[in-house]
Formats: sequence, structure tokens, C-alpha cells
Amino acid sequence: MITLLTDFGLEDEYVALVKGVILTIHPSATLIDVTHEIPLGDVRRAGWLLRWSWSYFPKGTVHLVVVDPGVGSNRRILCFEHEGHLFLAPDNGIFTPLLSDVPQPTLYAVTQRRYALKKISHTFHGRDIFAPAAAYLSKGLAPQRLGPRVDTYKRFELPQPLPTRKGSLVGEIITFDGYGSAITNLGSERLASLARRGPLTIRVKGRKLRGIQRSYASVPKGSPCAVIGSRGLLEISIHMGCASSSWHLQVGDPVEVRPAGR
Amino acid sequence: MITLLTDFGLEDEYVALVKGVILTIHPSATLIDVTHEIPLGDVRRAGWLLRWSWSYFPKGTVHLVVVDPGVGSNRRILCFEHEGHLFLAPDNGIFTPLLSDVPQPTLYAVTQRRYALKKISHTFHGRDIFAPAAAYLSKGLAPQRLGPRVDTYKRFELPQPLPTRKGSLVGEIITFDGYGSAITNLGSERLASLARRGPLTIRVKGRKLRGIQRSYASVPKGSPCAVIGSRGLLEISIHMGCASSSWHLQVGDPVEVRPAGR
Amino acid sequence: MITLLTDFGLEDEYVALVKGVILTIHPSATLIDVTHEIPLGDVRRAGWLLRWSWSYFPKGTVHLVVVDPGVGSNRRILCFEHEGHLFLAPDNGIFTPLLSDVPQPTLYAVTQRRYALKKISHTFHGRDIFAPAAAYLSKGLAPQRLGPRVDTYKRFELPQPLPTRKGSLVGEIITFDGYGSAITNLGSERLASLARRGPLTIRVKGRKLRGIQRSYASVPKGSPCAVIGSRGLLEISIHMGCASSSWHLQVGDPVEVRPAGR
Repeated sequence: MITLLTDFGLEDEYVALVKGVILTIHPSATLIDVTHEIPLGDVRRAGWLLRWSWSYFPKGTVHLVVVDPGVGSNRRILCFEHEGHLFLAPDNGIFTPLLSDVPQPTLYAVTQRRYALKKISHTFHGRDIFAPAAAYLSKGLAPQRLGPRVDTYKRFELPQPLPTRKGSLVGEIITFDGYGSAITNLGSERLASLARRGPLTIRVKGRKLRGIQRSYASVPKGSPCAVIGSRGLLEISIHMGCASSSWHLQVGDPVEVRPAGR
Repeated sequence: MITLLTDFGLEDEYVALVKGVILTIHPSATLIDVTHEIPLGDVRRAGWLLRWSWSYFPKGTVHLVVVDPGVGSNRRILCFEHEGHLFLAPDNGIFTPLLSDVPQPTLYAVTQRRYALKKISHTFHGRDIFAPAAAYLSKGLAPQRLGPRVDTYKRFELPQPLPTRKGSLVGEIITFDGYGSAITNLGSERLASLARRGPLTIRVKGRKLRGIQRSYASVPKGSPCAVIGSRGLLEISIHMGCASSSWHLQVGDPVEVRPAGR
Repeated sequence: MITLLTDFGLEDEYVALVKGVILTIHPSATLIDVTHEIPLGDVRRAGWLLRWSWSYFPKGTVHLVVVDPGVGSNRRILCFEHEGHLFLAPDNGIFTPLLSDVPQPTLYAVTQRRYALKKISHTFHGRDIFAPAAAYLSKGLAPQRLGPRVDTYKRFELPQPLPTRKGSLVGEIITFDGYGSAITNLGSERLASLARRGPLTIRVKGRKLRGIQRSYASVPKGSPCAVIGSRGLLEISIHMGCASSSWHLQVGDPVEVRPAGR
């Protein structure tokens, strides 16, 4: 099984070429699209989606991520195994959220041209290098066959929630979902611990939300709510509406959670 | 085989998680997307698309519909068998068009947590309950194993075409397709019977169309036409254009068909 | 294996019905979407995408193209074999780019109703004729079983790059990709030959680009560049931007390549 996560969009033949190359090498591979609608070159969003999706697939799955603004430059391509899954992506920070918990990942640079197409373009390594490498990995090729071991990988700074002197916790919006809900870096466990000190108030962009709701349907249509979403993270939503556009929210906006009365 | 019909969109990892959960339980399942572009919470459109698609799949197919604005509330999840196909969706009216011909459907409420993920969120039952249930059904689990039999299900009012004293038939627009063609509830059989009394005139939003065309290509590019579309229903179209925006049509707009001269 | 290339969009049940019909006839077929986002009736773009995608799939693949503004008219449906691949599409010019290199293709008109659904609509031959024919072809049916051999097929005029007296080469934009890069009909081989006479200058819409870059990443973000794209054709791009909207480019706009100093 191979999952595909790219910024190729669905208008062109790009995704199909990746699949055709894979299926030519490994005709019985099962191919699952995570999304191809990552905004062009948005390495952070790709990294989060990878982090939130891989563990729902069976062991042995190859996760191929091609969000690759540096294609044709000297950026590396990396591969590694983690809990029985294989990961393949350009070395541009995509692995940051996934590897934040992994102290010593065993990474390989993909350099062996034996597992690439014969003719390699400078503009579409997804087709020419990533697809064949993923196909061979899904057939059982060991990652170390793709190239030498390397010790480093590019990371972006992962925003961490910060406690304040007043006893509140300040996180931030890390991305949005397609409905416009804001996803924060505030995890359910830290919020549960905070909630022991009283009902919570959530503040974002000068607005205040009282309490964390059980689900979107806990508030009337059109009303805002804070919920623990399906990723175990606090989300700011408008039930059947679009929080991001209604409230002009942006990635990086701070979100403060405070036990009430403080 | 499992078909998937949701309002999840294609930007996020939601559809992939449903597929990953299914394939973890049933690795050889064939997964077919009907659409994931149902407008958020549009239960009626989802119900029509289900009605128009299921019978083109082989017997034994499981049809999973997750358009679920009530996720996390006490709305039920229903499952039933019909003509050798299995259907699984929240109990919010989605089954109305499909079951309108079925006098006594044998429905089951999905309550048995043995066939769900161990950890069930309040915001994404598509992943946590629907996907595993669909996977087990596709492996041969009988619907009654998922929970108790129930006698009722939610319905929305199905608009019926009405004959007028003047001998015409008045239906309405029930949805649009992606090209902007208006799909009505006027079926080919009733229209054929009406057409025996003379050539037909179609009226919608103060405009008049003469006759039902064989296909869109029967009129010049940019011209409007009434045709019997692929669902056996009268459609109002503009050849290579967009009727919904050009004529400001909306769901519920009346469409009158009258034998000419009356 | 069957590839699907249509203008059906992803909002409706159309693509799913084609797949359901195919899988009812050939349950183990592997179905790959090339794209369903061809602009309505854009036969040229469909023809280019077919040309650019087929060869990346394994031999024996059936390539089904349904961009069919003439559905329900007397336009023919054609089928042929080429280098071990099978192609099926309406006879409206779609095959022009693919067959431009093939002097005497052996074409068959699809007329045999034995390999269609029993009930054939006038508005959706994709489901009723193309899908079952593709399914039977993928099961090994010979193309000649679908109908009689025919000698002609519709073509659109293929724009050819023209050399000028001044030693430059003038091609044109043939389509755009989803990022807004303009794809021209200027192939890498002719440009390489031209480049032997000195560094190249590219002119489009009154703008001048110096040199052909190795990849998009060779220029800063937001800067324009000319590159040989993944199709072996000259592209006009803006790195991480959208050339088509920024420069108001259109299909048919001339693109001149000139050895510098001339």
C-alpha cells in the first residue's frame, strides 16, 4: 500500500503519472490519495497532514510526500522507517511534525539511480525518482538500498504552547481544514489538565469562547465553538460555517486558554 | 466493494483516514469515491446522489454515506440491505429518496462498539465508527450484528410533481449538477404520457422552452434546452453553458410542463 | 488497468457510475484517474493530457477519454491499439496529438451494442457505451469486435513551431497547467539545436526572459523563468507564482525563442 500526499492538484496529469510509474513497477500496489490539494510548496501543512494520517494505515504502508519547491536544486530526498511504516519525501522540513517525537531516526538519502526512471527531468522528480523508489519500497526493498545513511534532516520550528504567569496556556493556529476550522497546537491532554482548575475560556483575535464543546453540533448552526477535533487538538470552528474567513484567522494567530475566573 | 459519499472535501486527510481504517480491517476492499464534494451538511443532495448511483455497482457493494452534521449528538447510525446492496449512513434523512419505493425496510441501528475503533472521537465518526463498520460489512458481517432492529428513520419531504386543472404538470428543481444543469423531479414516464397530448412547453422562472430535446447537442452552443438527463429526469440546461447561474435558478423553483396550445 | 480522462468534474456521481459499470463487468480492473477537471468540452486539452500520460502506464492499459460535447449526436466513437495500449474516445479531435506521429492508425468505430448497457441514454454515453466497452477491452476483447474498421478520424490543426528569417523559432502556448505555467509547443530537441548558436532569449507578450533555466528553483520565488518542463516542452513559469494570470497569457499566444545577439 502506498499513500500519496502532494501539491500537484487534480487538474493536470501529474498525479496519474506518479501512479502509472508505480503500477508499472508494482502492478498490485494499492494507491491511496491523502490529498493533492496542499497549497503550492506549503511544506508545513504537508508535514501536519502526514503526521495526522500515517498511523491509520496498515503496517508496511509506504507514505510518499511530494511537496517539493526545491525540485531540480541540490535538496536531498530522504527515506526512513518508523513503527513498520516507510516514509519518502524531499528534505525540506516535511518530516518535522512526524519526527518531533523520534529522538534518533535512521534516515537514508535517496541517491541510487538504479531505482529511478532512466531519464530524470529537472522539474518532476515525483514521477522520475519518488514514484519508482516508492514502488520498489512497497515491493519490499530495504530503505538502505536507496542510498547512504545520513544524520541530519531539515526542520522547521515547531510552535510549542506556552504557560503564562496567570495560569493560562497560549498556543497558536497551525493550519485550517477545508471547512475553515482553525486547528491549534493545543493538545487534549494539556487542556484536560488545565480544565481541572475550572471551566475554560478560549480567546482568539479578541473573541472569547466559553468552554470546550463535545462536538460541533453542541452549538446552534452559525455559532462558534471550541472543540477537541479528530486529531486530539483544540479547534476553533463555526458550526456549519467558516471560522477562518468569518473571523479573519491566520496561521500563527495566538489562541489562549484560561481557567475561568482567572 | 465500498462506495464513499461524503461532504469531507479533498483538501484534508479525512477521506484518506476513512480509507486507511477500512483497508486496515479489509486490505483487499475496492474503494470507489462517489463524491466528497457534497456541500457541508447537504443531506438532500447526498440522498439524491446515493439514489442515482447505487444500482450501477455490483451486488454485495457497501454504500457508505457520511454527511453528518449531527456527529457527536444523539442521532443514530443506520444500516440496511436492499436488493443485495448494503447501506450505511447517519439517520438524518439521507435515505429518503432511496427508500421512497421501499414500503418496509429492515433497518438496524449501529450500536455495537465491537466493530468500531477503540477510541471514538465526538467529531469524526466517519473514521471511528462508519469506516470500521463498512469494512466489516464488506467482509461479510450481517447488518444485524451491528445493533438492534429499528422501525423508523428520518425522512425529508419528497416534493411530488402535481397536475394542474389546465392539464400541465408542475414539478420543481431538486438539485444541480456540476455543470449548472437543473435536475427536476419530473420523470421521463410521466412526461412521455403528457407528450401524447401534444408537443410540450417547459416554463421555468418566466422563461419558456419548446419541446424536450434528444440531447444537449440538439441545440447550438449557448442555447438553453430541456432534456431527459441520464437519471431519467427532466433537466434544464444551457448547451456548454451554466443554466443555474445564467438564469439564477435555485432548488425548489417550480418547473411547469404543458402540452402545447393549452 | 483502465485510465479515465473526462470533463465530468468531481461534484457529481458521473465518474462513479462509469467506474461502477466497469467494475460490474470487470471486478478486478485497476482504475486510475488522469483528471476529471478538463474544462467542459475542451477537446484540445484532453488530447494533450492523453498524449502526455499514456506511455507512463503498463502495456495492456485501456485509456478511456470522455470529453464528449457531441453526445447524443451522430459523432462516432473510436477505438484503436497503439504500442500495446488501447484507446477509446469520441471522434472529435481528441486523438490529434497522440496520432500526429502515427501515419496509418488502425481505427475501429464502436457500434456493436452487445458491449453496451441495455438501456442507452442520449446524454451519458460515458456510462452507457464507453464504460462497458472499456471494461470488455480490459478483459481482453479485441478492438475489432466493437465495430467496423474506419479510415478517417477528426483532427484539429496542430500548431507547428516556425523558424523565422532572423534565425529565431516561433511557437505558441498550447495549454496551462494547474499552477498557471504556460506550456508551449517548443520541444527540447529543437531548442537544444537552436542553443548551439548562442544563449537563448525567450519573448512572450512583450516580455523577455534570458536563458532556459534548469528548474523553477533556479530563480528566486516570484521570478519568471523559462524551463524545459516534464513533458519535454518549453514552459513559461513564475517560481511559486502563476504566470497565466500575472502575465495575462492565453492559449495561442506566440512564444519566440532567439539565439542572443540576433
